[in-house]
Amino acid sequence: MTQDQINGLIVDRALAGHRVVRLKGGDPFVFGRGGEEALACVRAGVPFEVVPGVTSALAVPAYAGIPVTHRGVTQDFAVVSAHLDPSMPGASVDWESLAKGPGTLVLLMAVAHLEAISSELIKRGRAGTTPVAVIRDGTMPTQQVLTSTLEHVAADAARQEVRPPAVVVIGDVVGLRDQLGGTA
Amino acid sequence: MTQDQINGLIVDRALAGHRVVRLKGGDPFVFGRGGEEALACVRAGVPFEVVPGVTSALAVPAYAGIPVTHRGVTQDFAVVSAHLDPSMPGASVDWESLAKGPGTLVLLMAVAHLEAISSELIKRGRAGTTPVAVIRDGTMPTQQVLTSTLEHVAADAARQEVRPPAVVVIGDVVGLRDQLGGTA
Repeated sequence: MTQDQINGLIVDRALAGHRVVRLKGGDPFVFGRGGEEALACVRAGVPFEVVPGVTSALAVPAYAGIPVTHRGVTQDFAVVSAHLDPSMPGASVDWESLAKGPGTLVLLMAVAHLEAISSELIKRGRAGTTPVAVIRDGTMPTQQVLTSTLEHVAADAARQEVRPPAVVVIGDVVGLRDQLGGTA
Repeated sequence: MTQDQINGLIVDRALAGHRVVRLKGGDPFVFGRGGEEALACVRAGVPFEVVPGVTSALAVPAYAGIPVTHRGVTQDFAVVSAHLDPSMPGASVDWESLAKGPGTLVLLMAVAHLEAISSELIKRGRAGTTPVAVIRDGTMPTQQVLTSTLEHVAADAARQEVRPPAVVVIGDVVGLRDQLGGTA
């Protein structure tokens, strides 16, 4: 089902007089296309309400024992969709600025490009020794967490055959997992 | 009550045999000091579980009709605690990289420094015409949303006497509020 078809279905059912609940995993406004569905409602004159959810970008690290912020470690974090969308004209992730910031990076859909991404970040200024975690099946009984460093993570992930989807966390907060990951 | 006292209370009650629930607004691992409380438990041998929540950094923009990501607009966002903590040795927010990134910026505790922050971002490369929203009492019946641009927001906020705390959103996604803000 394409996004256009989903938008159309929501609007059609609403205009037919039904109360429509569009339930999503995660947060509808964090890479959830909730904005597109809301805009379709606006154009059709359908009133709506958006209920925020718990995004995997933050919850998956938390369950792996990694707070995205921690006093004395980082005051900011960035969340990036690292699956480049070729339909996005002229737009791309600015790895230069992501490399230089001091904060935590949370990458979604990054496993396929882990080699290129880690090389790019190192080339642009992140230390190769920066701790990295690759979390697969986050929060599930089957959860697997690979910890490594920026310079070794691509090879380590390939060796352990980590398959997408996974959440990648880059930054010194990953080091807290040694203490917080055991019981979380 | 200081953070140390809170940590001590959690641990004391747990060691006394009680089941302790530490309830927080927002997400405990997003500027919530949850990591510090969890570390205190680890040190005391107290088992714990962390339950992620809905952070104001994402929910407040959502209720104001602003998705932090939107296809064709941005593939990333950063969340920053803009209240500089002088106790953090040598650390500060890297405004250079935040200015250069293409994505959405969500600033918490930024109202007091809005003039300095907006000037810094413009000086380092963000367009002065970038849309900005300042959301006070987010999600509450008393919610107030000021929309402006990076070059004018500090003066506008001062004129309207916006007082902290507020959530500041910077980026083209703010423009979606014109369509999504009416019913959300």
